[in-house]
Amino acid sequence: MPKTQRVLIANRGEIALRIARACRRLGLETIAVFSEADAGLAHLKLVDHAICIGPASPAQSYLNQERILTAATLLDADFIHPGYGFFSENSDFADEVEKRGFKFIGPSGSVMRLMGDKISAKRKMQEAGVPCLPGSDGALPEDPAAAQSICDAIGYPLIVKASAGGGGRGMRVVEKPENLLNAIAEAQRESQLAFGKKDVYAERFLQEPRHVEVQVIADQQGQAVWLGARDCSTQRRHQKLIEEAPPHDICERTLCELGQKCAEACRHIGYEGVGTFEFLYEAGQFFFIEMNTRLQVEHPVTEAVTGIDIVAEQIRIAQGEPLSFAQEDVACVGHAIECRINAENPVTFQPSPGAVTTWLPAGGSGVRLDTHVYTTYTVPAHYDSLIGKLIVHGKNREDARQKMLDALGEMRVEGIETTIPLLSQLLNTESFRTGRVSVHSIDKGRI
Amino acid sequence: MPKTQRVLIANRGEIALRIARACRRLGLETIAVFSEADAGLAHLKLVDHAICIGPASPAQSYLNQERILTAATLLDADFIHPGYGFFSENSDFADEVEKRGFKFIGPSGSVMRLMGDKISAKRKMQEAGVPCLPGSDGALPEDPAAAQSICDAIGYPLIVKASAGGGGRGMRVVEKPENLLNAIAEAQRESQLAFGKKDVYAERFLQEPRHVEVQVIADQQGQAVWLGARDCSTQRRHQKLIEEAPPHDICERTLCELGQKCAEACRHIGYEGVGTFEFLYEAGQFFFIEMNTRLQVEHPVTEAVTGIDIVAEQIRIAQGEPLSFAQEDVACVGHAIECRINAENPVTFQPSPGAVTTWLPAGGSGVRLDTHVYTTYTVPAHYDSLIGKLIVHGKNREDARQKMLDALGEMRVEGIETTIPLLSQLLNTESFRTGRVSVHSIDKGRI
Repeated sequence: MPKTQRVLIANRGEIALRIARACRRLGLETIAVFSEADAGLAHLKLVDHAICIGPASPAQSYLNQERILTAATLLDADFIHPGYGFFSENSDFADEVEKRGFKFIGPSGSVMRLMGDKISAKRKMQEAGVPCLPGSDGALPEDPAAAQSICDAIGYPLIVKASAGGGGRGMRVVEKPENLLNAIAEAQRESQLAFGKKDVYAERFLQEPRHVEVQVIADQQGQAVWLGARDCSTQRRHQKLIEEAPPHDICERTLCELGQKCAEACRHIGYEGVGTFEFLYEAGQFFFIEMNTRLQVEHPVTEAVTGIDIVAEQIRIAQGEPLSFAQEDVACVGHAIECRINAENPVTFQPSPGAVTTWLPAGGSGVRLDTHVYTTYTVPAHYDSLIGKLIVHGKNREDARQKMLDALGEMRVEGIETTIPLLSQLLNTESFRTGRVSVHSIDKGRI
Repeated sequence: MPKTQRVLIANRGEIALRIARACRRLGLETIAVFSEADAGLAHLKLVDHAICIGPASPAQSYLNQERILTAATLLDADFIHPGYGFFSENSDFADEVEKRGFKFIGPSGSVMRLMGDKISAKRKMQEAGVPCLPGSDGALPEDPAAAQSICDAIGYPLIVKASAGGGGRGMRVVEKPENLLNAIAEAQRESQLAFGKKDVYAERFLQEPRHVEVQVIADQQGQAVWLGARDCSTQRRHQKLIEEAPPHDICERTLCELGQKCAEACRHIGYEGVGTFEFLYEAGQFFFIEMNTRLQVEHPVTEAVTGIDIVAEQIRIAQGEPLSFAQEDVACVGHAIECRINAENPVTFQPSPGAVTTWLPAGGSGVRLDTHVYTTYTVPAHYDSLIGKLIVHGKNREDARQKMLDALGEMRVEGIETTIPLLSQLLNTESFRTGRVSVHSIDKGRI
């Protein structure tokens, strides 16, 4: 009898639990790696093997490549699942995983590199016919006059962004031509500090766009399918707070054309695994912003409306299996909303780690809570403050909104502060109720 | 502004939490009553008002009519929801509730009385055209010769049952004519002791029937709808362990005819609220056994496949609202399975109360866990041992079975013993997998 294959889960928190569940469904063995601060994580009770890989500091544990790969060797792993965050979009890590003889659950390092660089990603998307924002088509030239002339042609307002960027760093909005050169210099300085590269590019800046993204999945045999889209416009400082599927009030034909182009782009670049094409949406038009070459936090809303287990399918693909469904099998039923519950003060957003003295989860029909937290769990101070994702599935958007309000109102958490009150407040705003939230609504104080 | 209406939940455990959730969805205030042993119940954190009504002993708390009604008066209740068990099928309690000016969430006392007596229930069902087992059509006569002649006409094997009975008490299977009179005498004696009435009746005994039941719901305006059926054949000593919807391998037309007759029976007797018609099913034929005039433990499997919130609808009906859907709106999608998780030794079935030191629930897409238990909760020794209901929804029966096995395997409970290992074992039997479980399979040691 051949050995049961083993998946090392190179992550923590709710997503580690989510991955462990998918592995169990597929009959695979699981290996958890955890830091000294994380001995209380729920998935440690569920996995077949668990090993402490170092101190709380991410650099010494979840972001320590050597320790993770040593654990993989010691415990005879076949696959490494990076989850999201940490090493999930690190192409060098993906390369090293493969070099040591493990299978990285995700696309190849070279495809990650291609899509991780915003300039090369945009070029590839244009080749595949995916709509992009008018922009500088590559890094702006060093020569100020040349840069000015390219940007004047794009038109104002425009945004200057670090090629290697993310999370809002190395970005400047330029309202008028005369502010351009200063903004470029500032963005370059910030990019050099944050990412070690000073290349910046420019593109049209939209006033009140929505964030709409397309979930794709592609196998090693070259088949690629899109699994519908999500609206993630409810953001604070580029951090998503609430996500939905499907995006409301968008012409189905337009969305379908976009989805087909995304699937085509996957085939074009030889993509493998799950991924997300992120777009800004304004006045009926989509503009590509970036691709996430990994599983996303908000994948459960797509699972709710399509009935597809995205993580199990992702792992099957890494095993070399072809996709278990075709494009025509994908249908979207009802409406799903996800709220990210963070251990933070809901007003100041200060992290609120500590011991959870009461954790009574919401539940019932159409309610899903992905969480690693339980009564007596202690939220460590060292990591992302996400402690749970509440997902509801309703008949339509308003039904889902009501269900989410009920579910949030039902959660009882004591010992730490959470963003639950803020989430309820956002869902109750006129803007959210009528679907008029743009990516800037919260930061501009409009809701 | 009129006062928000208040629902007193005259129950405990998972069903009290389930009812509190439904009330919140409807914007109603909730009152919990709890015994001294139950201060740790999860729903106490969720309700608007909570009051301790007495010591742990059910007779002094959940089965103490005066204390419950006093709490209802003190806390200004409008409705009383009895849940299941305790007072839920007590017609005198329902009458008293109404006499004191509260609304009982359920049918009238007189309808409960009519359907609570098995002989009058059977007569009513025959009038409505619902198929019944050939039987004595009323209590057997005192005269032995007359009783023998009636029973010989029904045929053997037959079963003698207490008219007021339930839970297996006052029941005797008779294989041969010569054993009849002894069996009647024994059943009468047992019935007198258990129920204070010695009336017994006789009906055909089926060898290996399945338990199939029809969920109905009827409003005060006289509309009645059936919500599909469930198979609850996996029983141990008349206690259901695993329930499913829809019942597998039953001709849809036959089931539909049965459902329509059940809805008709509701209209015939002036039924209000939710209820269940229970049948034995053998060789393509249904035989009515009894009606449960209350919400049932296994209602979530019907909720999963129909998408209808049965408890919310039940409460709306008590408020005088008409049904929010018609028969043609009810559709059944996929397959659902429920497992009852009891705090018991899985081999001896001895109750296992005590402190729960670890409670890590199963979760993920299509998995629902209705429970009042959490890490640090103590299961009291005084009540039913049900500590949770795990419900999964799959594409088809086999998909649901696999999901349930995964979900059961995922539960981590420490500090008490549970029936989880037994449930996994049952789901894995050839009999369950192929759908060949009868109500006797477990008791006869066949699975």
